[in-house]
Amino acid sequence: MEESGDVYDVYNINSPTSWEEHQHQKRDDHVDVDCLRRKIKFFFMNPCEKYHARGRKPWKLVLQFVKIVIVTTQLVSFGLSNQMVVTFKEENLLTFKHLFLKDFSDGDMDTYAVYRQADVYEHVRYIITQFGLLHNNTVGNHEYDKNGSAYTPLSLCHEFYRNGSIYSGTETIDIDAEVDTECLNIYPMSPLTQHDALQDFKLHFKRMLSVKVTFVLKAINVQTVQYREMPDCYDFTVLITFDNQVHSGRIKIDLDTDVSINECDNLKLSGVSPRKSYLTVVFDCLIIITCMSSVALCTRSVCKGIRLMLEYVHHSNKHCDREVPWSDKLEFVSGWYIMIIISDTLTIIGSILKIEIQTKVLTSYDVCSIFLGMGTMFVWIGVIRYMGYFRKYNILIVTLRTAFPNVIRFVCCAGIIYLSYLLCGWIVLGPYHEKFRSLDTGSECLFSLINGDDMFPTFKNMKQKSRLILTTPSSNSSRVEPRHQSCRSSCRSVQTCQSLESTD
Amino acid sequence: MEESGDVYDVYNINSPTSWEEHQHQKRDDHVDVDCLRRKIKFFFMNPCEKYHARGRKPWKLVLQFVKIVIVTTQLVSFGLSNQMVVTFKEENLLTFKHLFLKDFSDGDMDTYAVYRQADVYEHVRYIITQFGLLHNNTVGNHEYDKNGSAYTPLSLCHEFYRNGSIYSGTETIDIDAEVDTECLNIYPMSPLTQHDALQDFKLHFKRMLSVKVTFVLKAINVQTVQYREMPDCYDFTVLITFDNQVHSGRIKIDLDTDVSINECDNLKLSGVSPRKSYLTVVFDCLIIITCMSSVALCTRSVCKGIRLMLEYVHHSNKHCDREVPWSDKLEFVSGWYIMIIISDTLTIIGSILKIEIQTKVLTSYDVCSIFLGMGTMFVWIGVIRYMGYFRKYNILIVTLRTAFPNVIRFVCCAGIIYLSYLLCGWIVLGPYHEKFRSLDTGSECLFSLINGDDMFPTFKNMKQKSRLILTTPSSNSSRVEPRHQSCRSSCRSVQTCQSLESTD
Amino acid sequence: MEESGDVYDVYNINSPTSWEEHQHQKRDDHVDVDCLRRKIKFFFMNPCEKYHARGRKPWKLVLQFVKIVIVTTQLVSFGLSNQMVVTFKEENLLTFKHLFLKDFSDGDMDTYAVYRQADVYEHVRYIITQFGLLHNNTVGNHEYDKNGSAYTPLSLCHEFYRNGSIYSGTETIDIDAEVDTECLNIYPMSPLTQHDALQDFKLHFKRMLSVKVTFVLKAINVQTVQYREMPDCYDFTVLITFDNQVHSGRIKIDLDTDVSINECDNLKLSGVSPRKSYLTVVFDCLIIITCMSSVALCTRSVCKGIRLMLEYVHHSNKHCDREVPWSDKLEFVSGWYIMIIISDTLTIIGSILKIEIQTKVLTSYDVCSIFLGMGTMFVWIGVIRYMGYFRKYNILIVTLRTAFPNVIRFVCCAGIIYLSYLLCGWIVLGPYHEKFRSLDTGSECLFSLINGDDMFPTFKNMKQKSRLILTTPSSNSSRVEPRHQSCRSSCRSVQTCQSLESTD
Amino acid sequence: MEESGDVYDVYNINSPTSWEEHQHQKRDDHVDVDCLRRKIKFFFMNPCEKYHARGRKPWKLVLQFVKIVIVTTQLVSFGLSNQMVVTFKEENLLTFKHLFLKDFSDGDMDTYAVYRQADVYEHVRYIITQFGLLHNNTVGNHEYDKNGSAYTPLSLCHEFYRNGSIYSGTETIDIDAEVDTECLNIYPMSPLTQHDALQDFKLHFKRMLSVKVTFVLKAINVQTVQYREMPDCYDFTVLITFDNQVHSGRIKIDLDTDVSINECDNLKLSGVSPRKSYLTVVFDCLIIITCMSSVALCTRSVCKGIRLMLEYVHHSNKHCDREVPWSDKLEFVSGWYIMIIISDTLTIIGSILKIEIQTKVLTSYDVCSIFLGMGTMFVWIGVIRYMGYFRKYNILIVTLRTAFPNVIRFVCCAGIIYLSYLLCGWIVLGPYHEKFRSLDTGSECLFSLINGDDMFPTFKNMKQKSRLILTTPSSNSSRVEPRHQSCRSSCRSVQTCQSLESTD
Repeated sequence: MEESGDVYDVYNINSPTSWEEHQHQKRDDHVDVDCLRRKIKFFFMNPCEKYHARGRKPWKLVLQFVKIVIVTTQLVSFGLSNQMVVTFKEENLLTFKHLFLKDFSDGDMDTYAVYRQADVYEHVRYIITQFGLLHNNTVGNHEYDKNGSAYTPLSLCHEFYRNGSIYSGTETIDIDAEVDTECLNIYPMSPLTQHDALQDFKLHFKRMLSVKVTFVLKAINVQTVQYREMPDCYDFTVLITFDNQVHSGRIKIDLDTDVSINECDNLKLSGVSPRKSYLTVVFDCLIIITCMSSVALCTRSVCKGIRLMLEYVHHSNKHCDREVPWSDKLEFVSGWYIMIIISDTLTIIGSILKIEIQTKVLTSYDVCSIFLGMGTMFVWIGVIRYMGYFRKYNILIVTLRTAFPNVIRFVCCAGIIYLSYLLCGWIVLGPYHEKFRSLDTGSECLFSLINGDDMFPTFKNMKQKSRLILTTPSSNSSRVEPRHQSCRSSCRSVQTCQSLESTD
Repeated sequence: MEESGDVYDVYNINSPTSWEEHQHQKRDDHVDVDCLRRKIKFFFMNPCEKYHARGRKPWKLVLQFVKIVIVTTQLVSFGLSNQMVVTFKEENLLTFKHLFLKDFSDGDMDTYAVYRQADVYEHVRYIITQFGLLHNNTVGNHEYDKNGSAYTPLSLCHEFYRNGSIYSGTETIDIDAEVDTECLNIYPMSPLTQHDALQDFKLHFKRMLSVKVTFVLKAINVQTVQYREMPDCYDFTVLITFDNQVHSGRIKIDLDTDVSINECDNLKLSGVSPRKSYLTVVFDCLIIITCMSSVALCTRSVCKGIRLMLEYVHHSNKHCDREVPWSDKLEFVSGWYIMIIISDTLTIIGSILKIEIQTKVLTSYDVCSIFLGMGTMFVWIGVIRYMGYFRKYNILIVTLRTAFPNVIRFVCCAGIIYLSYLLCGWIVLGPYHEKFRSLDTGSECLFSLINGDDMFPTFKNMKQKSRLILTTPSSNSSRVEPRHQSCRSSCRSVQTCQSLESTD
Repeated sequence: MEESGDVYDVYNINSPTSWEEHQHQKRDDHVDVDCLRRKIKFFFMNPCEKYHARGRKPWKLVLQFVKIVIVTTQLVSFGLSNQMVVTFKEENLLTFKHLFLKDFSDGDMDTYAVYRQADVYEHVRYIITQFGLLHNNTVGNHEYDKNGSAYTPLSLCHEFYRNGSIYSGTETIDIDAEVDTECLNIYPMSPLTQHDALQDFKLHFKRMLSVKVTFVLKAINVQTVQYREMPDCYDFTVLITFDNQVHSGRIKIDLDTDVSINECDNLKLSGVSPRKSYLTVVFDCLIIITCMSSVALCTRSVCKGIRLMLEYVHHSNKHCDREVPWSDKLEFVSGWYIMIIISDTLTIIGSILKIEIQTKVLTSYDVCSIFLGMGTMFVWIGVIRYMGYFRKYNILIVTLRTAFPNVIRFVCCAGIIYLSYLLCGWIVLGPYHEKFRSLDTGSECLFSLINGDDMFPTFKNMKQKSRLILTTPSSNSSRVEPRHQSCRSSCRSVQTCQSLESTD
Repeated sequence: MEESGDVYDVYNINSPTSWEEHQHQKRDDHVDVDCLRRKIKFFFMNPCEKYHARGRKPWKLVLQFVKIVIVTTQLVSFGLSNQMVVTFKEENLLTFKHLFLKDFSDGDMDTYAVYRQADVYEHVRYIITQFGLLHNNTVGNHEYDKNGSAYTPLSLCHEFYRNGSIYSGTETIDIDAEVDTECLNIYPMSPLTQHDALQDFKLHFKRMLSVKVTFVLKAINVQTVQYREMPDCYDFTVLITFDNQVHSGRIKIDLDTDVSINECDNLKLSGVSPRKSYLTVVFDCLIIITCMSSVALCTRSVCKGIRLMLEYVHHSNKHCDREVPWSDKLEFVSGWYIMIIISDTLTIIGSILKIEIQTKVLTSYDVCSIFLGMGTMFVWIGVIRYMGYFRKYNILIVTLRTAFPNVIRFVCCAGIIYLSYLLCGWIVLGPYHEKFRSLDTGSECLFSLINGDDMFPTFKNMKQKSRLILTTPSSNSSRVEPRHQSCRSSCRSVQTCQSLESTD
């Protein structure tokens, strides 16, 4: 390994000469040096060489490969079951849009809005009517939520400024910025009440901030039966918002759902034997154990490295009277071990979360998937380290390593230019183009323009759904030569100046 | 040939000198060596040089050029007739969608679904009504299939879980995972039966898995008459599926057709004399014969090469006491010959399949086109070999050859990083973006993002139709320097260590 | 000029030394050589140097710059007037689609088709009704064409196979491939006839090939009045085709127009004084004269070059007894002159066509624009030559020149691989993806995939309108080394020649 | 600083040797030279070195960093408030389109047109009816404008050629190109008048140029209350145009608004304490003061540089008898200072404009945002200068500086080729593809094809809104060699100067 063998190399090549010059050194010292040299040499060997040198079995290596296999298996199985849940959620969301939004058609959501007073009333009435007819309408197994024996009602809330008279014509505004909320509960299965309730439902359009319709529906994901898993029960809290914050004459309508997943109360399955769920938990525990032992082994190696480093530093100080530079010290702490430890930690946390999800204690698929995903990614990237043991494959690693500081420097400079463009683009182009309207869309747009301009729809689509996820693009390190003697001249000038003065 | 002439060159230049130094060698030996040298020299000549050297006519060369012409001719003629068949199929599919799917409009297929119970009944009734009216409606020549004297009926099948009560409200599920199927046959030309049959057709929405409507329509591709070919008879098995697997309240409707092509029973054509079909078969046979002789000639050359290699190896072992390395041995087996043999084999299989298709024994256009397509591709790529005979054109070949191992190595490392990104992207971004929903779409998306992000629609479109076809993109070998001193240091350390010990 | 000045340079620097060494050479010979040397030296000077050397005014240079200005002016004025004509045509086409096609909406044209017998009749009737109502409907100034006193009728033609019975059910075909045409003339302004005529209009769907509706409408482009040009009269021949060639149950409907432009018969304009049209013609004549003198001057230069070359060849043969290589001979014929001659010829032809168009003899805007466009392009590219006179700007030219043969070679090899991929892609992917359906779309798709995959819509859009235009993409000359020994050989030849002489 | 430190360096290193050789030089002269040398040395030091050398505090540096922070803060706060205004305007525009345009749906604007006489009347009537019903319809707070006590009327104007009879059928045109305008005022809240007025409203379609409907609506941006800002009053002048300039039978309908923003007359706010607006003004003043002092300091530095340069030039002339080249002179004037001065000037102008906007004197957000945006961009780019003080970060600056002339030269040549392609593409492809229809779209299309072909929609979208904004893409400086002899000459000049002296 070129990158870590340097310390030892130089040591080997240089010390003999200095050693031969000073034959009068004590024998004791030499034995010490020799011993340290052997230790360091052994430390920087790769598993294969260690086996040949002292017959040490490469347990860590084997463990890593076992880990890759089982971690990937876990990720794939988790991903597949996750996929089913996500599909169920998405399709339900689509169903609700089609059932409760008047004249909705696919792909309309961005421009779905009303512009007339009559339309607003009509849309609200449509939602309530459809809610009442749900059990005769839906082709799924949606049902009303029951709180004890009574149904959970649909709640229709109207938010508006407490008081105020706005007359644009005479430019007269007298407004109280406090927000009042009036709510109306409508129970399903009682059509008469519905009609009466809506009879005297009036909206104060000039003061109105929003109308919110909320109700809860229950559903069961029966599909899992075909994959020999137990079906889950879902509570969908549907929230329909008529948004009039801007008061521009356009009321945007938005439908969103909040999902909670429970184990069903009364479950009887025949004709198929569901897979034992505890097996998955056992597999997860196995992974946790594997990762823990991997952490232990790596920590030990790191400790060993640090101890060896201290010994070496001590020796250098004592015998050569020179400080060991930081770059040499860092050679003793392998970055790969650090990465493995991080990856293992992520995987362990992810697996624990997964067990919780499996046992329906938690439903935070998102957080769990981030931990598991990152963990697996690092584990796979770790494979590159083992490729580095083959001579010809080492290039990539060495190149990355050498290029890194230069790339960072380039990115800094380019980043500042990017930032200055972005600020300018946002403020100047913002009013004329939707893509530069806000700082984050502007940034995405600029970035995708640099990279070929079609990433934008992807970014946009993704952003609407979750702001949790941050994608860090890999920096394009465009060949920066590492030679630069920028300030050297200025330093030298000072030096020479002094020497001149002294010669006077 | 620059790339393969090396062996001979070195041999020529170096051996004489060594030979002059050892004048005491036996004359016999020398004659042998000289003979072998001549043989090898002749073997590595290109056709032109062979002709000049011994007047050997370049039959193989001529044969290859003849092959390129006739194989391309065959491919183009096959492609053109294939194109007509595909167009006919596609347009029929579109026609069926417009005739049988209610409110269908072009480009809707992805979002074509129903969300209400009444809509499902309506769509089913629409299909059956349209099926009954077909002969008065269609502008094509579609007719019902007749099984003897009776018409083949439309079959309407309803799949559902055998038994079960699902109440989401009380979270009560009692389900039997066995699937039952109830079918209903509806005969065309008997409207009364239709009405009665549908009267008591009830769907159990909570247990329903799918509704499938199947019927057979016959059509004739009359268009071929204009190209002086005989018209074919088509049997379209139309399958309309109402898919409720997910039970999310959204029933996706899909229409697909299965096509079988026959020779028509009673064919009478006047006003035009159709092209003789046996001529095409004769042409295909000619191609098979050409390819076979090409295979024979190439196999002979490969055999000759192997025999010469063995002789050379034997000689080396005997006289120079050294092992011939594998890279030298491989020089004797020309990769081009292997490629020609593969290409010929593919073409022969493709041509046989084509004859079968021509005579209506088979209808597997797909498989045939893969064989013919791959065959022709290799034949054309083979042309590059002959360009290599010109000195200046040789660059490309030599470059490709030298770069190959480095490219493979780079691809390995990059592939692992790609895989780790993909797994992470799938699990983390999957729930938020449709493109990362499944592993294969995620992979396509990542790949097209790297290449400029617009390949995605192409991929997506293609994927829906057939999973048979796999496109392997050529790896972008981005300049990897061939210098790497990766493990040298470790080797050196061992060496130095030994030298140190020896000085003790 | 770096590239052509070498001959002179080396000659100047080296010859004196060789000349001084050999004082015994004959005076006569030397005078001849000296004279030729001076001639060649003067020939390869650039205009500026020629002026300094012999006071020769750079007429050609001045002429070229004058030409650039007037040719560009002409192109821009032609383009602007052309633009107005094109817009008028396009908008009329759109208007006809909206007026005569039932339920047409913008962007529908690709999928505009009918699938039911009743729909076909309805669409035909709609066209005829709208044609009858045109004068009350249109907001433009469209009117019926009059042939003498009678109106030109709308003609409704029905093409079908002469005879035949097609029964898909029993697979019975008895067809006569001859095509019959039945036509019906319907006169505007006579609604009764219309109704009667359509009463007994029956289509034989099974034998039908197409229904074509043709009529002529007149319009006047009044818009030009605002730009002080005389308005033109347009005859639009509208052709609506119901295409049933494929007999797949889908009848595609297409509307196309054929335009002829005439001078209006009775034109009276007040309130504005139209620009004199003969001024434009005078300007065009000026361009023709300029280009002709440019051609004359360039031809003279080329002739001079050839004469000088012959003299040099003769001299070399006589004194040095050696053949002058082709590359040296070509140095004497400047490619730039050839390009200017071609460009001038194109411009002259284009200008003549333009005069014809101006005087309404021709209406072939397309052909004229190709000639003028190509001419102007070459004139502008010619500017680069003059940049080459500045030392630092010369790089681009020299690079292009040297790289050319290598690029061609690379393109050859890459072209073969491209072709093999294309053939394979067409045959294998064709059935699955529309982009690979035919050879030309496949080629466009592959090309645009290589270049970033978004050229496709552009190509596709363009292709539908005209197949006349061929766009040749500029070859991307990928990194060609700037070493070039182009003219060195010629220099050396002169040198060697002298040294040979001196040894005599 | 490599680029400017050279002068001093070489001077230091070389001069001693030459100085020691010539000990007989006068002491006086030497003192002068030495003094100048020290001055120049100090001048080219960076702030840090200056501090170490003479204890000079880096006020300028500190000021710059303070400036970056406050300028960015200002920009972001301005941008955010601007964003709110833009959103309000945009949403109102959309609302007007939905309220007043018949059958309008989002994204239709490009193809929104009418083709029949009846449709034109219907659309006009619809607008007037909707205008009458506005107060019962809109969900925003739009109201009619009142001029004193009377309402401002809707004005319906009809533009047509004064006189003329156009008969396409007989090709007879008799037209008076003068344009007449007939207007009709319709007052809201008086439905009877409306009906009567429209009764005898007739359009002369053959002569008609356009119909324009104009009216004024008032609105209040109440939304700002939530951000603790005072609400503004908006006057929207809505202009609906039926454009028939082309007379092609297609009348394009366009709706546009003109906005003016005022402070509301009668404003009473309770429940929230609005932010003091004078604080923002104070902050802007602070920025102006900061920028002014920055300008002052930089101007002083530039003056100092010029004075030093003059001294140096004088010295060179006197002692070395030689002209100082321009490149050396320019070394004394730092480009960075110039940039800071420009940036400060822009920011000051922008801030003044911003204060005007804040106090509702002006509403030119556009101009202000351009000044502020450019100012901030330059300030940020200026940061790169300070990075150049670190040795390793200097590369980017040096590379950019050296590459500049070569890049410019390349751009010139490429620009000519681009222009020639563009002209040819416009004239030849224009009629066939909309993207090449006009010179500017053609240019955009060509540019985006070069860059990956997806910039087009962005460009197009942006262009429709404002032609004020010009985006200048940064030139991609493709691989420029890092050799640069920028400062070498200056060093050499000093050197030569001394050697000259010494020979005296």
